[in-house]
Amino acid sequence: MLETVAKPIVQTLIQTLRWLLIAIVAGMLAGTASAILIVSLNWATKTREAHPWIVALLPLAGLSVGLMYHYLGRQVEAGNNLLLEQIHAPSATLQLRMTPLILIGTTLTHLFGGSAGREGTALQTGASLADQITVVLRKLGVAFSDQDRRILLTAGISAGFGSVFGTPLAGAVFGLEVLTIGSVGYAAIFPCLAAAVVADMTTRAWHVHHTLYAIAPKDLAAATLTPAHILASLAAGLIFGLAAMAFARTTHALGAIFKRIPFPPLRPLVGGCLVAAAVLLSHQTQYIGLGIPTISASFTQHLPPWTFAGKFLFTTVTLASGFKGGEVTPLFYIGSTLGNALAMILPLAPSLLAAMGFVAVFAGAANTPIASTLMALELFGTEAGVFAAIACVMSYLFSGEQGIYRTQRTAVLPEEAE
Amino acid sequence: MLETVAKPIVQTLIQTLRWLLIAIVAGMLAGTASAILIVSLNWATKTREAHPWIVALLPLAGLSVGLMYHYLGRQVEAGNNLLLEQIHAPSATLQLRMTPLILIGTTLTHLFGGSAGREGTALQTGASLADQITVVLRKLGVAFSDQDRRILLTAGISAGFGSVFGTPLAGAVFGLEVLTIGSVGYAAIFPCLAAAVVADMTTRAWHVHHTLYAIAPKDLAAATLTPAHILASLAAGLIFGLAAMAFARTTHALGAIFKRIPFPPLRPLVGGCLVAAAVLLSHQTQYIGLGIPTISASFTQHLPPWTFAGKFLFTTVTLASGFKGGEVTPLFYIGSTLGNALAMILPLAPSLLAAMGFVAVFAGAANTPIASTLMALELFGTEAGVFAAIACVMSYLFSGEQGIYRTQRTAVLPEEAE
Repeated sequence: MLETVAKPIVQTLIQTLRWLLIAIVAGMLAGTASAILIVSLNWATKTREAHPWIVALLPLAGLSVGLMYHYLGRQVEAGNNLLLEQIHAPSATLQLRMTPLILIGTTLTHLFGGSAGREGTALQTGASLADQITVVLRKLGVAFSDQDRRILLTAGISAGFGSVFGTPLAGAVFGLEVLTIGSVGYAAIFPCLAAAVVADMTTRAWHVHHTLYAIAPKDLAAATLTPAHILASLAAGLIFGLAAMAFARTTHALGAIFKRIPFPPLRPLVGGCLVAAAVLLSHQTQYIGLGIPTISASFTQHLPPWTFAGKFLFTTVTLASGFKGGEVTPLFYIGSTLGNALAMILPLAPSLLAAMGFVAVFAGAANTPIASTLMALELFGTEAGVFAAIACVMSYLFSGEQGIYRTQRTAVLPEEAE
Repeated sequence: MLETVAKPIVQTLIQTLRWLLIAIVAGMLAGTASAILIVSLNWATKTREAHPWIVALLPLAGLSVGLMYHYLGRQVEAGNNLLLEQIHAPSATLQLRMTPLILIGTTLTHLFGGSAGREGTALQTGASLADQITVVLRKLGVAFSDQDRRILLTAGISAGFGSVFGTPLAGAVFGLEVLTIGSVGYAAIFPCLAAAVVADMTTRAWHVHHTLYAIAPKDLAAATLTPAHILASLAAGLIFGLAAMAFARTTHALGAIFKRIPFPPLRPLVGGCLVAAAVLLSHQTQYIGLGIPTISASFTQHLPPWTFAGKFLFTTVTLASGFKGGEVTPLFYIGSTLGNALAMILPLAPSLLAAMGFVAVFAGAANTPIASTLMALELFGTEAGVFAAIACVMSYLFSGEQGIYRTQRTAVLPEEAE
């Protein structure tokens, strides 16, 4: 009796302590990388805003990023898709160079006015740094199986996501949820949570602060759960899902077009020309960079209804042509401004719809409805939780399975598998 | 192109509208049943408190419940385990009588002073009422496959859970999460969310209010994410997990002992004698019924450290002998009072530990760490979210796989299944 009760407890304790130690290291590495990334992007954004003419150099920046990846980073060029692939079918360790390359590539993209995000970068730094732990442990002769490595890579993704956005719970579930469409597996639940919490603590310990968004108190007070509000949330979620689908499909389609340029470094050169020309001709800078000021504005004022479309175009061209950065902050931007616009036709307040769109377009594009709902709770509080959850689930359903991560797999239901 | 984009959207729209209509009906039924349950239990609790001698009749109440189930409800006696079994391997429709039997059985249990909960009842009313929709649809000649029925039963569980506790997001994920240990499948995500939201709205529309618990503001302010606090949360979660394991094992072991009494209706008679004798000899009534006042007290004051043990004993004897009701509210009680006691040895505030225990013992016993974390966010707000998540995940790990629902299955990882 004692044996059967005590033995599994001791085994779980040893496993938990082992993963806690590993997750602390992975979390501190990922959190530090996220802090460096956020500080770099803040510097790049301020510098660009102080010198608007810098956008004219975007084609050259594109060429530099392209040359850098062509000659130094061909094996890590696939980025997030490579991460997911390695977790599904572990082969070679992620090269450590993934971290400096993606950090430099992302900073150049933002400094010269590309439209991109940062989560892709954070996932890659989080996971490639975590993968170095595998290398070190194995060199030290510590037993570390391929399954362990997969769990650690997943934890690295959670750590990167949780620390770059300041949302450790969403980060923990994102790692579990992003791997397989339509399923969450729990083998990595503790390492993911521990790494995400430690990473978030680490980023904050570096005195890096996250932008705060808030639903206007009067909009929250008006957000009662009436049938009309629920129906409006369902409709909004559907529209967010279609936007997510359009984003993923457009990025893939534009990527295929850019691939017709045979020498890869020329692709971001051409993409940079397009984006720079659009900025210089339109005198609009709100669609480039991370776009945090516009996201914030979508929570406080009415914006022109085409704002989301501008970001959509600038981001898909930037990323499809080979600039570096993530998709998620642009998806937050597209979602929150689209939500803001939907307030003109739906009986929900603009800041509530902005919050719903913020998480829901991302939920659809990444196929992560539960992580996105948790993110809404962490960023905006619990009062709008049901609205955010409805929007995220509807967007997940209507965005289709093809998301921004092409190497995601579709779940096998346990019943089907038996 | 238009075909490949538009066709899946139209199909998803039709499926979504179909499930929305079904979920509205299931949610209204489940929410109404939860309202009836909550009103009945409020009446039973008040009546018992006004007439404390009524506890002496608990053995007779036990005999009545036993006879009722023996002669009228043998096919629905397995309760929640029957629900999970039907979802895994659909055979016969859940009889409609499941609903009145469990409502009457639970009310009798509470009126005469058994120690039990209400979630088991809400799950059974939610699911058995939902299953009647299958019967009606099939009689009307509407195509409704066995897979559809499984999704609807899952949605009924979500609706019952979400409405009885006033936590629709936790309810939605609980339905998905409880079916299979270590995995969440998304086939039912929309029906579960829709049914849980509608059910919660329905219960509230019946003017039924839920008890509010709150972490003391000064305790929240002190709950900073320091390494010491994280380590204390890990330790607390481990202890909550062991309490959850002990609860599940004790209930199963006591159940096996009671099964030695060959005529089933005599089992709750004997169990009722034990509980009634303990109450009358000890002059303690805090361990019987739902125990809401003690749960509330665990958030506001220091309680004697053995409080959780009393509830543990009273509940395991009550439920193992065949009284009706759920395990979850007693688990909230055990968790919150155990958390309160742990404040004596851990560097975390008592009301924070009470909130963590509230959700974490349940997370371990039901194997539902994500639903329990969502519940913490819905009930206590987001500030304590990381603490609750750590406690829930640790409890899930350390409670072992054998939980309170014996017909749960263990997940097959997608990778293993391929």
